[in-house]
Amino acid sequence: MQSQGLPGFRDFYPDDAALRNHIFAAWRDVARRYGFQEYDGPPLEPLELYVKKSGAEIVGQLYTFEDRGGRSVAFRPEMTPTLARMVAARGRALKKPIRWFSLPQLMRYERPQRGRLREHFQLNMDIIGEPGPLADAELIAAAIDITRKLGLGPADVRARISDRRAVRALVDALGLSDAQVPIAFQYIDKIERESRATLIDGLADSAGISSDTAEQVLDLGDIRGLEGALAALDEVPGGAEAGEPLRHCVAALDALGMSEYVDIELCVVRGLAYYTGIVFELFDAHKALRAICGGGRYDGLLAALGGTDLPAAGFGMGDVVLGELVTEAGARPSAQVGLDAFLVAVTGEDVPHVLQLARQLRDRGLRIEYALKQQSIAKQLKLAASRPAKRAVVIGPDERAHSEVVVRDLESGKEQRVAVDSLLQGYSWS
Amino acid sequence: MQSQGLPGFRDFYPDDAALRNHIFAAWRDVARRYGFQEYDGPPLEPLELYVKKSGAEIVGQLYTFEDRGGRSVAFRPEMTPTLARMVAARGRALKKPIRWFSLPQLMRYERPQRGRLREHFQLNMDIIGEPGPLADAELIAAAIDITRKLGLGPADVRARISDRRAVRALVDALGLSDAQVPIAFQYIDKIERESRATLIDGLADSAGISSDTAEQVLDLGDIRGLEGALAALDEVPGGAEAGEPLRHCVAALDALGMSEYVDIELCVVRGLAYYTGIVFELFDAHKALRAICGGGRYDGLLAALGGTDLPAAGFGMGDVVLGELVTEAGARPSAQVGLDAFLVAVTGEDVPHVLQLARQLRDRGLRIEYALKQQSIAKQLKLAASRPAKRAVVIGPDERAHSEVVVRDLESGKEQRVAVDSLLQGYSWS
Repeated sequence: MQSQGLPGFRDFYPDDAALRNHIFAAWRDVARRYGFQEYDGPPLEPLELYVKKSGAEIVGQLYTFEDRGGRSVAFRPEMTPTLARMVAARGRALKKPIRWFSLPQLMRYERPQRGRLREHFQLNMDIIGEPGPLADAELIAAAIDITRKLGLGPADVRARISDRRAVRALVDALGLSDAQVPIAFQYIDKIERESRATLIDGLADSAGISSDTAEQVLDLGDIRGLEGALAALDEVPGGAEAGEPLRHCVAALDALGMSEYVDIELCVVRGLAYYTGIVFELFDAHKALRAICGGGRYDGLLAALGGTDLPAAGFGMGDVVLGELVTEAGARPSAQVGLDAFLVAVTGEDVPHVLQLARQLRDRGLRIEYALKQQSIAKQLKLAASRPAKRAVVIGPDERAHSEVVVRDLESGKEQRVAVDSLLQGYSWS
Repeated sequence: MQSQGLPGFRDFYPDDAALRNHIFAAWRDVARRYGFQEYDGPPLEPLELYVKKSGAEIVGQLYTFEDRGGRSVAFRPEMTPTLARMVAARGRALKKPIRWFSLPQLMRYERPQRGRLREHFQLNMDIIGEPGPLADAELIAAAIDITRKLGLGPADVRARISDRRAVRALVDALGLSDAQVPIAFQYIDKIERESRATLIDGLADSAGISSDTAEQVLDLGDIRGLEGALAALDEVPGGAEAGEPLRHCVAALDALGMSEYVDIELCVVRGLAYYTGIVFELFDAHKALRAICGGGRYDGLLAALGGTDLPAAGFGMGDVVLGELVTEAGARPSAQVGLDAFLVAVTGEDVPHVLQLARQLRDRGLRIEYALKQQSIAKQLKLAASRPAKRAVVIGPDERAHSEVVVRDLESGKEQRVAVDSLLQGYSWS
């Protein structure tokens, strides 16, 4: 008769919750060091908020239903529409640039597949109100810093960066029409996932692009490194200007000490249509997993969504891939609470004294447990060891008579008598 | 064209998020000091999980729908069924007593009313596997300690405690049948919300209880204080035994230093049918608000829900009333990030040096921001003051020539020149 949870949803037993909290702590710590403020929105939003941004196709991927008031609602699949709504509601009162972050749990109705989750937590960091490339660099540096904080280095994590304005200048120079350009971007985005022949056929079928031009479009995706990109841009109309933000962003990342992590790769354009400038992804160095994070500049989106015409850039970073990398790197935190002490009562009459000491030690911020029923010292010590507690503090009639306790180190087994007064003041708990 | 959020759901702007994090930090800190481990479950669960516990009537209060796989699902309205499911799945592997806590966001489709929310966050703390009253005392003490941690004292918060076993012994002595007892409990639960005449009529109508007996039932609700309760129990069959757990629990709370907070009030029976022993609520001392928390012992519930027959006790504490009390007490945290420093570049050539210093200071855990575009010193200082930053660190060509910076205290306006080396090492940031 035992129920199961829904497929694609995770239970977080203490081990898993500890890893999640470890990632959340890194997210919050770095975001705050970068001067970002935390916000949050509701898990449930009007469906129209997502349709407005992504079109009606999105509906099939959402957890959506009609509520008892007849409203079409959806569980949030992403945070940006909520951010746009909240910024629009307070627009002028918020000092620009707005530097906000959030840690929402998001849901998508992914097709049932092994290991495919239908929910995840995602750090969202956004800078609103600043169009310049220092804002992009700031976000990329923060994303990298999170992986540093979690014990990963440039041999583990790569930041892949491009700029849609630069790619656009190069595509324009091939003579593509305004209608063909967005399709060219879609196919550049697929370079690493599909064969060249498939892509060339696709560019012909969907945009009427000749195979010669299609080859040239796809060749753009092979451009690597800032110098290679700037050299290619130098040869096309408006190219030098279009390359400036990327050049500035890379220089800023250098000054921010992040150049070891940075790869310029023009095949990175990100799938979503609304990106307008610098785009980036963090990947594990072996590209064995999905992206660690993705983001970019979306200057027109807030106006389209909420009526606030402000330039903006941001990224989303999920907890799942990050958790896998941290686990692989052996940097997973211990699951255990790690009690500072387990208090042991020798007799029933010692129990009130155990409780009193528990209160005093907890008030000092220590993690304290004791047996919730009378049982043998052996059983109490066994429970203490299982938590695990670092030490047992034993209180019996003899100890009480001398205002002392016996402190037993549960790793070494060594015991010492300690005065209660010194346990409360001066004793080294570390 | 601006969308609004759904009624009954909150947006957390940075001010509100700061208060929420303040409450979450108190929850986590106290739970860990008491040796509890954090867990979490999915926000979406099979509908049957809730129906199994609360009957079909619950469906009307849930956010429930059929997912694309044809499953009836619901957003979690409470955590206990998920806890029961998770414990059942790992039953034997978990060392007893299990001491777990969680901070889920819960949803209920409450009737639209002013100020009535449809979601809230709720600390859940449970002890599973221990039937004795020390477990109940431990939970009550933790709940009280959270309010202490948040700056509230016994003049602000009261813990109202009773025991269904004691009330049951008193009700039985009035000659009520097994069928009448649960109805008597329901009416005792309503004593503070409805008139005595209404309650007497209700007891007659719904359970056929005479008005004389009904008076006696309701009189039980007037019993206050441990001594009063024990005296009443002494006069009924099995009463002395039925009063033992409450007596032990109160003694333990005394040893735990919580007696100042404790009120024994037999009218507290809690509305839910599954409580089997000690029950308790925390209220603001003026009873101006809804309960801060409520809980009790539910020894039969896990078996009924998940097949694991373990005694259990726990409570839920929401974020809304607690937030109101903290705000009233003037103990609300500042909304602001509070930057340690805002770095100011005098000229464009100073920007890379600002970035480099930002990296170095952030690596030391400091909260640092700088302007994301070139602008006048006055504008940079204005932005710095608005965040607010404690100090501005000004870097210009002259400062760079001497490997120095000018540190300007933004409150006092005082300036001092500081060597960059000493800023990175030895400077007092507090």
